[in-house]
Amino acid sequence: MAVYTDVSDEEMAGFVADYGIGDLVSAKGIAEGVENSNYLIRTTGRDGTGDTFILTLYEKRVRPEDLPFFIGLMNHLSTKGIPCPQVVAMPDGTALRELCGRPAAVTTFLEGMWTRRIRKEHCGQVGAALADFHKAGADFPMTRKNALSVDGWRPLFEMSEDRAHEVHPDMAPMIRDELAFLEESWPTDLPVGVCHADMFPDNVFFIGDRLSGLIDFYFACTDFLAYDLSICLNAWCFERDRSFNVTKARAMLSNYRDNRSVTEAELGALPILARGSALRFLLTRLYDWLNCPPGALVRPHDPMEYFEKLRFHQGVTGLGAYGLGAYGVDGA
Amino acid sequence: MAVYTDVSDEEMAGFVADYGIGDLVSAKGIAEGVENSNYLIRTTGRDGTGDTFILTLYEKRVRPEDLPFFIGLMNHLSTKGIPCPQVVAMPDGTALRELCGRPAAVTTFLEGMWTRRIRKEHCGQVGAALADFHKAGADFPMTRKNALSVDGWRPLFEMSEDRAHEVHPDMAPMIRDELAFLEESWPTDLPVGVCHADMFPDNVFFIGDRLSGLIDFYFACTDFLAYDLSICLNAWCFERDRSFNVTKARAMLSNYRDNRSVTEAELGALPILARGSALRFLLTRLYDWLNCPPGALVRPHDPMEYFEKLRFHQGVTGLGAYGLGAYGVDGA
Repeated sequence: MAVYTDVSDEEMAGFVADYGIGDLVSAKGIAEGVENSNYLIRTTGRDGTGDTFILTLYEKRVRPEDLPFFIGLMNHLSTKGIPCPQVVAMPDGTALRELCGRPAAVTTFLEGMWTRRIRKEHCGQVGAALADFHKAGADFPMTRKNALSVDGWRPLFEMSEDRAHEVHPDMAPMIRDELAFLEESWPTDLPVGVCHADMFPDNVFFIGDRLSGLIDFYFACTDFLAYDLSICLNAWCFERDRSFNVTKARAMLSNYRDNRSVTEAELGALPILARGSALRFLLTRLYDWLNCPPGALVRPHDPMEYFEKLRFHQGVTGLGAYGLGAYGVDGA
Repeated sequence: MAVYTDVSDEEMAGFVADYGIGDLVSAKGIAEGVENSNYLIRTTGRDGTGDTFILTLYEKRVRPEDLPFFIGLMNHLSTKGIPCPQVVAMPDGTALRELCGRPAAVTTFLEGMWTRRIRKEHCGQVGAALADFHKAGADFPMTRKNALSVDGWRPLFEMSEDRAHEVHPDMAPMIRDELAFLEESWPTDLPVGVCHADMFPDNVFFIGDRLSGLIDFYFACTDFLAYDLSICLNAWCFERDRSFNVTKARAMLSNYRDNRSVTEAELGALPILARGSALRFLLTRLYDWLNCPPGALVRPHDPMEYFEKLRFHQGVTGLGAYGLGAYGVDGA
């Protein structure tokens, strides 16, 4: 839950008035997202019939120099038909502004809700949407290094290493071994492009059973496309009891491949990429868990979830584990 | 900021479908209010053009047995033209339901925003709206005892007494003396009716400069109407530096009296009622301050604000202090 910056009614009304999207008639801070302050705002609309937007104030975990990438990407993808927020520009073309001392932007509102009970059909649509996202991003001209890829993991681990045993006695040695393995074996020559890099269930909206929107582009970066796919496998295809649901994985991978052709090298790298993405989320969750103030209202995610997901991928001996046969043929 | 209960998309969609207000298309937890979980929901609407509502889950600080009073009151006032949320009933007439194990209700959405920078014009409109509220409530048939009136203050104080010195060395003795005085002198025969009892700036919406809505009826109760007015004096007429703005008070009281005739006894009791309402908020804030978990994201209100407001009213020697002359004639 997050509204870190309290914007006065007068400041917000003045800010919104500059866009030509009608007068502000309400603003509610949204209790979602942990990085930024978000307000759902309603205006009288360009034509007086009312309209809804999201106003985001970028808080300190977002680097201001990355914002042109994120904003440019949303507008690029939106133009290409990807169902994502579009950044609203003022009549002079300015989209990135400042409010209450923070960078701020207004985006269109996407209808839909994220799903708490993930079914195979959701996973299939996520696979297809991720492929569309990757294709639509192919001619996006900007790049952004992924600070949370293999180079970033060891420094991140070092911030938690001394206290990792508080979570699990095997945590530190397991991560140490895994880091050594991944740094040695991480692929170098897979297809690269714009990745969402955080396409978790709470960032994908559905209306009924139909995928209606993708949100939260603030981890987007330039990296291996198949790494992004491995993030989705981790985020969508495990059950609550932390067992891996191969049917969901097959639906996701199959639909992804229907929309974007995947190379043999990418398929072959999936197990190691999935280990890497599991480690990436394990490390950030471990850090947040160890550094959460006692009594905080927002309970951090349990790092053990990704500890166990990582263990699963470590045990994978072939693509059959993900529902694919040898050489990428569907293993169904 | 508050969403204490996380409702799944499926449960919420099923819940909303029962009302005949269209299909659920989005739901955002709102980061406002400290008592309940609130979601701003959008539906396709009765006629397919879209509609907006608030879904409230009543958390443990609201007693379920009080809900019929609150819901009945909102509907009563709404019918009388008071700009407050209306509780939406299902086709069978049921308005109070259960969701995720909590009592829950859907209300209409009020446009407008609460104002952070209070001007005289706001105070005047609040006075008028409070009088209208009191008149509209006159024939509301239900009653609810005010648990936070004079009988409730001593038990509340006793929960904080031992640690009150942590906030200010004079806190405990000052409250002890004030309690003795108020218990001895509290009026007994003033006009009684339905009070909002929490009409603070964040519960009053404006669109531009026009008062557009009153929300949060979950402290409403049956008590002296002039006590409710004294709560508004405390909530609206002090400046940030804790000085009392007599011009704002005059605007509030004058507009209140234009809309509801106030007895001499009520006017004469205003100073003591204002002491009582200042003590009431001092006591709850003191308790919340002393019992806030370290590191909590929501910082409780500073009890010193109401300590100083109480001191102000203790020094009042006549109605001139509130902008009124002797015998309630405007002192302007």
